[in-house]
Amino acid sequence: MSPRTGRRPAGSDTPDVILAAARTAFASAGYEATSLRGIARAAGVDPALVLHYFHSKDRLFAAAMRLPDGLFDHVVSLIAGDTPDLGQRVARLFLSVWEETASREPLLAIFRSAVSNDQAAAALRGFVTEALLDRLAATVSVPDRSLRVTLAGSQLVGVAMLRYVLRVEPLASADVGTIVTWLAPTLQRYLTGPWP
Amino acid sequence: MSPRTGRRPAGSDTPDVILAAARTAFASAGYEATSLRGIARAAGVDPALVLHYFHSKDRLFAAAMRLPDGLFDHVVSLIAGDTPDLGQRVARLFLSVWEETASREPLLAIFRSAVSNDQAAAALRGFVTEALLDRLAATVSVPDRSLRVTLAGSQLVGVAMLRYVLRVEPLASADVGTIVTWLAPTLQRYLTGPWP
Repeated sequence: MSPRTGRRPAGSDTPDVILAAARTAFASAGYEATSLRGIARAAGVDPALVLHYFHSKDRLFAAAMRLPDGLFDHVVSLIAGDTPDLGQRVARLFLSVWEETASREPLLAIFRSAVSNDQAAAALRGFVTEALLDRLAATVSVPDRSLRVTLAGSQLVGVAMLRYVLRVEPLASADVGTIVTWLAPTLQRYLTGPWP
Repeated sequence: MSPRTGRRPAGSDTPDVILAAARTAFASAGYEATSLRGIARAAGVDPALVLHYFHSKDRLFAAAMRLPDGLFDHVVSLIAGDTPDLGQRVARLFLSVWEETASREPLLAIFRSAVSNDQAAAALRGFVTEALLDRLAATVSVPDRSLRVTLAGSQLVGVAMLRYVLRVEPLASADVGTIVTWLAPTLQRYLTGPWP
């Protein structure tokens, strides 16, 4: 015990205590307005411990939303590089994440709360914008890349809605390779094509 | 009163009674499993009255979901015809419906319940598939048109999610003309382009 600060000592349950505080903070204040320092305070631990266990705010968010370990690094490495097959790479990665039960279930839960609750929508919007779209935008070297990246995001989110949430046929049962083949040119055009 | 059948006589509140029964039926059984005859029975009116007021199951669904009068006819007439500007016409129509407060609010409500509730998802899926996608598919004269139409639907639903539900910038504030210009070639390719 540290009577001077009232902070909990690090223990085997510390990551869980931090995750619970993070879930509450992201859900009530949104992603942007939530700080690692505020989460540490709510969890009663030193901010250095939060960094020790979770490295960054976006990784803590992913962990708090119960997304699988390593998913985030995987996303960042796969979207790096502005190449002619960027659209195909992004489509394949997005679908492979949704095809895995371990990542689909938490993603469905996040979708559901974001659509029904404004705070959850703010949390998801902040995470998607700062952690994914801004990073994807940084790999694309054309003007108006923020709009381009959100257009690509709209195509991906729409496929997730129709295939995994609403399960509209024949999209729900189509094989992943076919869908990737259809989506790749759309994403490539949004991300790197000429302004229409 | 009609003591023989237990049915209510037609009165000034009859449309509202039918709409309330329709809302309950669509939400509990889904669009496909709900019949006009079943709704009439639940409302205690003659099935002919349901047809008299609402003309068809898809119009009754639209009315029960509080979508504006005439929206449905508008959709059907605008998507008719397989022409080179089909993609642009569909994008413009879809966005114009969402830009109107009178249709945006009920659409948001339908989205929210479909994402959080499996029965509501079944109702929306059935309506979108039978009333809109199948009709759009009938105007497109290429093979595999059902998959094509759901791909186009995925792009439209994704824009609605990011722009109107999650309000992700800069897509949320982009002007409608710019978005239509970006979406039109995507929709045109999905609906009428070569198999990739």
